Amino acid sequence: MIGFTGLILDRADSLRTAVEQIAALAGAEEARLMRLAGLEPLLSEEGRLSWHSPRDREADSELLFLGLSGETPLFAPLRQSEARTDSAFSMFAVLETMLPEDAALWGIAHSLITWHRRNGFCGACGTVTTPFRAGWGRRCDGCGTEHFPRVDPVVIMLAEHQDRVLLGRQPRFPPRRFSALAGFVEPGESIEEAVARELKEEAGVVTIGVRYVSSQPWPFPGQLMIGCIAQAESLQIQLDPTELDDAMWVDRAGVAAALAGDEAAPFIPPPPFAIAYSLLTHWTAAD
Amino acid sequence: MIGFTGLILDRADSLRTAVEQIAALAGAEEARLMRLAGLEPLLSEEGRLSWHSPRDREADSELLFLGLSGETPLFAPLRQSEARTDSAFSMFAVLETMLPEDAALWGIAHSLITWHRRNGFCGACGTVTTPFRAGWGRRCDGCGTEHFPRVDPVVIMLAEHQDRVLLGRQPRFPPRRFSALAGFVEPGESIEEAVARELKEEAGVVTIGVRYVSSQPWPFPGQLMIGCIAQAESLQIQLDPTELDDAMWVDRAGVAAALAGDEAAPFIPPPPFAIAYSLLTHWTAAD
Repeated sequence: MIGFTGLILDRADSLRTAVEQIAALAGAEEARLMRLAGLEPLLSEEGRLSWHSPRDREADSELLFLGLSGETPLFAPLRQSEARTDSAFSMFAVLETMLPEDAALWGIAHSLITWHRRNGFCGACGTVTTPFRAGWGRRCDGCGTEHFPRVDPVVIMLAEHQDRVLLGRQPRFPPRRFSALAGFVEPGESIEEAVARELKEEAGVVTIGVRYVSSQPWPFPGQLMIGCIAQAESLQIQLDPTELDDAMWVDRAGVAAALAGDEAAPFIPPPPFAIAYSLLTHWTAAD
Repeated sequence: MIGFTGLILDRADSLRTAVEQIAALAGAEEARLMRLAGLEPLLSEEGRLSWHSPRDREADSELLFLGLSGETPLFAPLRQSEARTDSAFSMFAVLETMLPEDAALWGIAHSLITWHRRNGFCGACGTVTTPFRAGWGRRCDGCGTEHFPRVDPVVIMLAEHQDRVLLGRQPRFPPRRFSALAGFVEPGESIEEAVARELKEEAGVVTIGVRYVSSQPWPFPGQLMIGCIAQAESLQIQLDPTELDDAMWVDRAGVAAALAGDEAAPFIPPPPFAIAYSLLTHWTAAD
């Protein structure tokens, strides 16, 4: 299972505009509100997400409708008073302990809340915006422009050549960690074009082919990670030091050792819930 | 070639922050500024994009740096005074006449300009924003938040079952046009999960598998179209009338006839520069 995927949740899109039905769902006995400390998930003794009733919410909070889990309406709280956004790294330790479906559900809440906090004003006219569509949008109180949660597509890729893959180190990584290279898709390019551009920019690697592998939502704050494998023309590397501290080609045995947690491995891999980990697993398993 | 792809342009990302170098490039004899009427491309007698010198720009316009075409720096104009955004449909006729590389280059300009017009104010605090990074960002004059061009990922897919594909009609389509179903990727879902959700929501179709085919940038105003083929569980359709006017399963002969422009075909296909057209071509060509 790729991190932050696999959620069984009916987003019930058609209910989002049904204001009275959402209010009734929020008032129902079985409704559940995700418990958060800031933006971090509050876990139960069993390590599961913990929930209370929407009736128990803070006075200054609004409800974001996540969807229906079976018959159970699930909500997340949007607080007015708290603007702090935690860093991704501070949550990695707790995420490693969580069940995949809990991480996926928390991920939606984290993305939505962060987006609301960054969009309290209208980009078109500067007036205050107000949530609508049960939390899946904000409308400008001035010009009426409707704004919808932003998802940024990011390509993340292993370049491969002569049975080796290219891995890089960002300055912010923990010691010895290497991972797949990645970058935001820009206006006016396809996935395949973005992969080739990023490999060229960051590592000077020329791409001769790209294949899509898999994707994942990444909730820090709201990316769509598009995982690919690119065929490189050669093993030459020309590093862009503003993007990467280091980059290297690793053979199959080296990747397998890293994934196995071997202390003698040439690098420490990204966490298991990151799609880069899934890409490495996919590559070592492929012929 | 998939529409809006195939551009040979060095975006020269590292130059964007080099203010003096960009100014020197804009002042160079060989620099070229795209000529636009509103947002529409102004074409030469040969039907190519037309260009003049950045020195000839309107007094109220700023320069967006598109990149380097060989040694030639290319720019697009961002005008302060004109807020009109044309509809996609009004440009389809001219786009059909344009060379793919011209359409791709114009697409970048159209996406960037539209994004600037919608982001003159900071979503976080409501203060005025100012372009930076040679047009590839805006910075808030108040809180300093940096904003970057938005790209919205959209899944667009053919469902297939028993050698037929599912096509739908949106209310805004010209008469008899049918196309692939599509929808925005939401926070917290993968490409594959978004495909399954959209098919269920819009047509009541249950998905049992998804494969990625290809992608394209779509400049109205700035989507990344992610083209997929989904395996459907059955031929049952349950239409959401708020999304679609109609939907139907079409066999291979029907799709081939539509792509060939046959008047007796069961539908009129989307324009050739749309990825839905490429998906249909791919599907009819596959075994």
